[in-house]
Amino acid sequence: MTSEAITVLGLGNLGRALAQTFLRGGHSTTVWNRSAAKASELLANGASSAGTAAEAVAASELVVVAVLDHQAAQQVLRGVDVRGRALVNLTSGTPDEARELAEWAAENGAEYLHGAVYAVPQTFGTAESSIIYSGSAAVHERWQKQLALLGKVTFLGVDAGRASGYDVAILSGMYGLIGGFLHAAALARAGGIKATELTPMMLSWLTDLQPALVTFAEEIDSEKYGTEESSLAMNQSGLATLIRATEAQGVPFAALDSLKALVDQQVAEGHGALSLARAVESFSVVSPRFARS
Amino acid sequence: MTSEAITVLGLGNLGRALAQTFLRGGHSTTVWNRSAAKASELLANGASSAGTAAEAVAASELVVVAVLDHQAAQQVLRGVDVRGRALVNLTSGTPDEARELAEWAAENGAEYLHGAVYAVPQTFGTAESSIIYSGSAAVHERWQKQLALLGKVTFLGVDAGRASGYDVAILSGMYGLIGGFLHAAALARAGGIKATELTPMMLSWLTDLQPALVTFAEEIDSEKYGTEESSLAMNQSGLATLIRATEAQGVPFAALDSLKALVDQQVAEGHGALSLARAVESFSVVSPRFARS
Ligand SMILES: NC(=O)c1ccc[n+]([C@@H]2O[C@H](COP(=O)([O-])OP(=O)(O)OC[C@H]3O[C@@H](n4cnc5c(N)ncnc54)[C@H](OP(=O)(O)O)[C@@H]3O)[C@@H](O)[C@H]2O)c1
Ligand SMILES: NC(=O)c1ccc[n+]([C@@H]2O[C@H](COP(=O)([O-])OP(=O)(O)OC[C@H]3O[C@@H](n4cnc5c(N)ncnc54)[C@H](OP(=O)(O)O)[C@@H]3O)[C@@H](O)[C@H]2O)c1
Repeated sequence: MTSEAITVLGLGNLGRALAQTFLRGGHSTTVWNRSAAKASELLANGASSAGTAAEAVAASELVVVAVLDHQAAQQVLRGVDVRGRALVNLTSGTPDEARELAEWAAENGAEYLHGAVYAVPQTFGTAESSIIYSGSAAVHERWQKQLALLGKVTFLGVDAGRASGYDVAILSGMYGLIGGFLHAAALARAGGIKATELTPMMLSWLTDLQPALVTFAEEIDSEKYGTEESSLAMNQSGLATLIRATEAQGVPFAALDSLKALVDQQVAEGHGALSLARAVESFSVVSPRFARS
Repeated sequence: MTSEAITVLGLGNLGRALAQTFLRGGHSTTVWNRSAAKASELLANGASSAGTAAEAVAASELVVVAVLDHQAAQQVLRGVDVRGRALVNLTSGTPDEARELAEWAAENGAEYLHGAVYAVPQTFGTAESSIIYSGSAAVHERWQKQLALLGKVTFLGVDAGRASGYDVAILSGMYGLIGGFLHAAALARAGGIKATELTPMMLSWLTDLQPALVTFAEEIDSEKYGTEESSLAMNQSGLATLIRATEAQGVPFAALDSLKALVDQQVAEGHGALSLARAVESFSVVSPRFARS
């Protein structure tokens, strides 16, 4: 791989790992962070420092941004000359925020690619992580080798907001799992069961469930909900029993009530015999944007 | 395997599958259900019918119960002569409900084993499912071959409530995942993304997360929370961004707020730099029973 000049703006946990990976990959890497101290280890490892974000952007054609949130990204880029630059923004945000920055980049003569990072501590900033991108196809094409250093690349098309759309959905799924896991651990502790005893059994069961979720996804896309073992009515009763049980254990968690409300709504509309997947349609009550026209 | 007489009380989705499996295994199976019609296919397949639950219990030493809930199980068993019987109850409920029935069984001269069933539609009532049991070790021992027909047997000890304790925790984890999945599917739809496109990517990410959950479990048991990439403070900010994003998509879900409240509490107590796993300690606020003495 030819050595390229790459700039990383933002040296939090993500930015530092990205810069380290580019350095290891033999690229001349310029780094900048709002508080300069976070750059010191990278400088010792051969990175170049820049006094301002504008100087850092001037140093390289490829500019990777990884700061706290959209507001921080806007503050960092405001007033900076980005003409001719490939901006790759890995900062989490909403689809509309990504589109807003893509427009700003276009108006200022830059290409914009937005990415969402999936990594666990062991794979953070390495090729074993996974990053989904959308926005500039030219950036994705021109810089694919450098991007591949950071993780498996999935390109989702030219709408700069699409990667964030996936990301918001995937993170919601993730936090559902994490919330459920924490609640399970709390219930286990209340019942004198170790979390480390429970977890392997629970994870194996959650893995067994995956094919059922794939079936749910097919039902949701087709809006054709089957009559299966796992009906809305059965889950309504199961959730009621479970909520009662968690209260009896002294460890209620309102997330279960939120799910039950979705199920209740569908049963009240007369769909009790249909698949649990149909609970997704309850979101249309709160979300006119979600309801199908 | 020697043919044994087995009785199944309750012929809902679970009970019918159980009875079918015993019949296939060559056991002379007596069945009873509150509404008799559900027995007809089983009778055609060679099951014996009983006019009352008491008659059904009289027919076999091993009696498997699978009805809607604890109240239903109590109603079915009330006044029935269960002396000398091995009662295996697969009805979902709380740990205390299982213990209550175990006591009742002991007072009435029966042995009691409680079980919780893990199965997906494809494996329902077959040896590919998994059942965790606790209660009478004698029943677990004497009937292990018959129980093995129904799924992988895990025996958790002589406290009849322990299997339900695991079950309540595992189901809470499962419903967290399902709630998160449904929310993700709703967000995807609102963003013009198909659930079937999103699901493989999401499930692969959730599978990658499993080692992190194992680490969380170790931290929770030891109450020693590390300072890692996934800190409470970072997740507090991540959850805030995500909640804002779901609102911007028009698909809020209160389950995320319930999780954020757990995280907020720990950050407010000054633990922001510690592992997200520490959010589990927030349950002690609502649950004095949960708090460590
Ligand atoms: N860490 C992960 O596992 C992970 C995974 C996927 C996605 N992400 C996303 O990646 C982004 C960065 O995450 P991280 O873990 O690196 O966060 P972090 O460790 O908390 O670092 C945040 C960075 O943002 C900078 N920052 C905050 N506000 C700023 C402002 N107004 N102007 C300029 N710089 C500002 C901070 O600079 P100071 O040092 O000056 O405070 C710091 O460099 C976030 O959007 C996160 O959601 C992270
Ligand atoms: N299905 C699963 O995938 C699964 C998995 C794990 C655990 N479980 C648990 O297994 C149990 C049974 O589940 P299921 O799927 O078989 O439920 P189901 O299909 O809804 O059947 C419920 C059964 O309970 C009977 N019943 C309800 N109230 C009764 C009462 N007061 N007296 C006597 N019988 C009564 C019903 O009789 P009628 O026909 O007369 O109404 C029916 O046979 C539940 O506790 C469930 O949580 C099920």
